[in-house]
Amino acid sequence: MSVLGRPLGVQLLAEVWDCNAEKLNDMKMIEEIMVRAAEKAGAEIREVVFHRFEPQGVSGVVVISESHLTIHTWPELSYAAVDIFTCGERVDPWVALDSLAQELDAEEAHAMEISRGMKNLKRLRKMKEEQGNL
Amino acid sequence: MSVLGRPLGVQLLAEVWDCNAEKLNDMKMIEEIMVRAAEKAGAEIREVVFHRFEPQGVSGVVVISESHLTIHTWPELSYAAVDIFTCGERVDPWVALDSLAQELDAEEAHAMEISRGMKNLKRLRKMKEEQGNL
Repeated sequence: MSVLGRPLGVQLLAEVWDCNAEKLNDMKMIEEIMVRAAEKAGAEIREVVFHRFEPQGVSGVVVISESHLTIHTWPELSYAAVDIFTCGERVDPWVALDSLAQELDAEEAHAMEISRGMKNLKRLRKMKEEQGNL
Repeated sequence: MSVLGRPLGVQLLAEVWDCNAEKLNDMKMIEEIMVRAAEKAGAEIREVVFHRFEPQGVSGVVVISESHLTIHTWPELSYAAVDIFTCGERVDPWVALDSLAQELDAEEAHAMEISRGMKNLKRLRKMKEEQGNL
């Protein structure tokens, strides 16, 4: 595929089940697990923000130079909804997912991988005309 | 569908093209547009964090009680990758998308809607046994 035709980013939508419920409710621990996951994948961390809800649950985001990681936890269901969005070739989102799923003691984790920023054919043709067939 | 079988959340993955490139590179404006989109959809805002990249581009997150909104912008392509993840019945993510697409002067915006936190059949059967057929 030509450079122009490549997606700008790739996003994992991960459904992480049968986690350690206590960990899912521990905001500090979730933050550490998410930051470590980003680091292991080779991402450059820019912003980190986490929030704990009453009576339970944690939401948080790690903004990286290559896009973001997010998590929302339901300790009462031992479930976490995780997104890992990366741009470029250097950072592998699957490494981050493997790291955090292990640290959450997840017995089940499945993910969809979605391409983001796919140019449509009309746009691609126009860009090729303007820039040459890159 | 029974209450147990419902997804925990819904997520829009929105591809927003042919936006106003100057707006896409203005971090303060992007932050305001994203916060307004969350407010119009009826979300309760918890945390707001935005980051501007050199030479161009903005990334940011609005954490809401009902999950999150994220954006990553490519001013050079007039493109923004937007996620809107909501839980519960009260907040309509499509209202947020409509608001921000308008404010970005987007000529094209399409989105996939994905259910998050869908219990598998084995888990559903177990929960029904434990809790009765809710």
